[in-house]
Amino acid sequence: MTLPTLPVIRLRPNANTRAIRRGAPWVFANETVLDRRTKALAPGTIAVLEDAERAPLAMVAVNPASKIIARILGPADAPVPDVDWFVARLKRALDLRIRLFDAPFYRLVHAEADGLPGVIIDRFGDTCVIQPNAAWADLLLDELAEALVRVTGVTCVLKSSGGRGRQLEGLDDVNAVLRGSAPDAAVPVEMNGATYMADLTSGQKTGLFYDQRPNHAMAARLCHDARVLDVFSHVGGFALAGLAGGAASALAVDASAPALALAAEAAERMGASDRFATRRGDAFETLAALATEAERFDVVICDPPAFAPSKPTLEAGLRAYERIARLSAALVVEGGYLVLCSCSHAADLEKFTGACLRGIGRAGRRPVLLHTGFAGPDHPQLPQLIESGYLKALVFRL
Amino acid sequence: MTLPTLPVIRLRPNANTRAIRRGAPWVFANETVLDRRTKALAPGTIAVLEDAERAPLAMVAVNPASKIIARILGPADAPVPDVDWFVARLKRALDLRIRLFDAPFYRLVHAEADGLPGVIIDRFGDTCVIQPNAAWADLLLDELAEALVRVTGVTCVLKSSGGRGRQLEGLDDVNAVLRGSAPDAAVPVEMNGATYMADLTSGQKTGLFYDQRPNHAMAARLCHDARVLDVFSHVGGFALAGLAGGAASALAVDASAPALALAAEAAERMGASDRFATRRGDAFETLAALATEAERFDVVICDPPAFAPSKPTLEAGLRAYERIARLSAALVVEGGYLVLCSCSHAADLEKFTGACLRGIGRAGRRPVLLHTGFAGPDHPQLPQLIESGYLKALVFRL
Repeated sequence: MTLPTLPVIRLRPNANTRAIRRGAPWVFANETVLDRRTKALAPGTIAVLEDAERAPLAMVAVNPASKIIARILGPADAPVPDVDWFVARLKRALDLRIRLFDAPFYRLVHAEADGLPGVIIDRFGDTCVIQPNAAWADLLLDELAEALVRVTGVTCVLKSSGGRGRQLEGLDDVNAVLRGSAPDAAVPVEMNGATYMADLTSGQKTGLFYDQRPNHAMAARLCHDARVLDVFSHVGGFALAGLAGGAASALAVDASAPALALAAEAAERMGASDRFATRRGDAFETLAALATEAERFDVVICDPPAFAPSKPTLEAGLRAYERIARLSAALVVEGGYLVLCSCSHAADLEKFTGACLRGIGRAGRRPVLLHTGFAGPDHPQLPQLIESGYLKALVFRL
Repeated sequence: MTLPTLPVIRLRPNANTRAIRRGAPWVFANETVLDRRTKALAPGTIAVLEDAERAPLAMVAVNPASKIIARILGPADAPVPDVDWFVARLKRALDLRIRLFDAPFYRLVHAEADGLPGVIIDRFGDTCVIQPNAAWADLLLDELAEALVRVTGVTCVLKSSGGRGRQLEGLDDVNAVLRGSAPDAAVPVEMNGATYMADLTSGQKTGLFYDQRPNHAMAARLCHDARVLDVFSHVGGFALAGLAGGAASALAVDASAPALALAAEAAERMGASDRFATRRGDAFETLAALATEAERFDVVICDPPAFAPSKPTLEAGLRAYERIARLSAALVVEGGYLVLCSCSHAADLEKFTGACLRGIGRAGRRPVLLHTGFAGPDHPQLPQLIESGYLKALVFRL
């Protein structure tokens, strides 16, 4: 069998060849021979990865501008990516989501774990949003969009370039419409019996995150007849799920006026405006103010942005989580429920749980733990990339 | 305020008083002054726990025959347990379960985390089964049963003495009917759209475990049109959930003929007998035999008994989990699903996951992890007793 005539990049003798043979998805620049030719490869070049003895190991996508210099695409002698290649991978990804969900609203592709390194695709009914967070996918974007239309039948494909992965890959931040025409208003999205409004184009970061779906569902089961407080609510994540779960009232707190406006619009669509209120402000300040105002809630949820996205921020991040836990626990009625979330890579489950328990204890409350949740199953993980298990949700009863 | 005239047990100066003040639920014998009077207390005696300086710390239930010599029941000056005391705790426990579940089938009381140390109560519609796994609950069983009838309205209350906790407490293994009359046949139990048959009285260990409910539900979402293999199926746990989820076929493997008979009876009630089969045998041998017979499945689930219940059994247990993973992964079609469970206290999530990944890798398969699940929220945990987070379920795609 003849190999395709692809450029070659070569591992140093010290590289972890064994890990790659076992399915590690990434090759780091310091593991490869960085000769002039390799450095000159255009970002996104499809190449063959060889070990130090020049034996071919894998087909890879190369980006000399990234610390992750190569991402494994498949066997060294496999066909290079084209529309059919994308079709096969998308079909496999779609098969899982069709099993999981009744309606076409989900993360369709979760990067490496779905065989498309660095590529995120979220589906909102007839619209798909691609985040090509690796150079190779930028280059092959048209083939990917074509395959996406073929496999899913969507009529609109958008490119979102806001992912922080693109900066690490040296890629631009230009959004684009790849197929069809962009929706001219926020799109209604059904999840857990609630309706959300997702703004897919404004760049206000008012899109929608699917990862919390099972945790929304879990919290909603506790919300019947409850007064619910949803802090860091974004476009209404937990609050709207709580309303769908029969909450007596839901108060959504967020710093973003556009996000809260979408939450209010969604509550209106759900016919739940009379049970829904918003309060714009800093979360820490608002939690303290609500305590002063002697407001109490049956269910309180805090789903903050990543306080500890990286190791250097870990200690400060854990203190912030502890503070959130302390301030929010004080607002929960006796026998009520507290849901605390973290999307910090650096704060693992044990550290995050510890911070939450310290905070709850400092509020003078005694918790029991009902549930530990992670990102939903449309966010599969490669075992080799367990840092991608970033999302944690803890459900306490106080 | 005068304290009730209860016996006193006293902590040694080296005891972890701080942990107790913070909510630790247990006092160990080596932390207390084991004088003649303390040793002479009848198992189950309600007493006051004092620190080494004779300051009262808590009301406790004492059992000099147990390593856990005292279990905290409440503040030192609280009323001693009577029917009203049980009513208050049961109401609080029931409130959570009513929120969580549409039908009265659940674990109603999960011991310490529900304020009733050592007491397990499972509800099956109009019947409750109490496992009084601590001496104090044995003594107050009539009050507990009375309160249970008052709070829940059940017509039948059974005492199950099969829990291994009772041996550690020096208690007998005699079952009893406490209220009403015992059902004379297996009881149908609805969960996740499936029907299970629970034999609450035969002592064949063919009752029902509620802890896997959310993991059953997760697996069932993958089963539409699938050929499903459920190994260590017991009374049909995952297999029947898979049938309810639309499985094309489900094969239940177990070593227990009575358990498989109940599974078959349940499948018949579901009108799914034509899609259901059982195979009695050793799990390891059956997995190997199925491979030899070239049988393949879209979804394979293995939910074995605890291979590593304690630290001394950890290494052998992890090897057994690895072997189960290897044998079962070999039966999964390309792109299919593998659900691996552990109910071993000693094998924590990281160790269990490692064993599973080694086994899957040795079968030559590349997994992605879709979901990590634990026991359901009707099994709350005290933060101080995290060993009670024993149940793990990992859902892989291969």
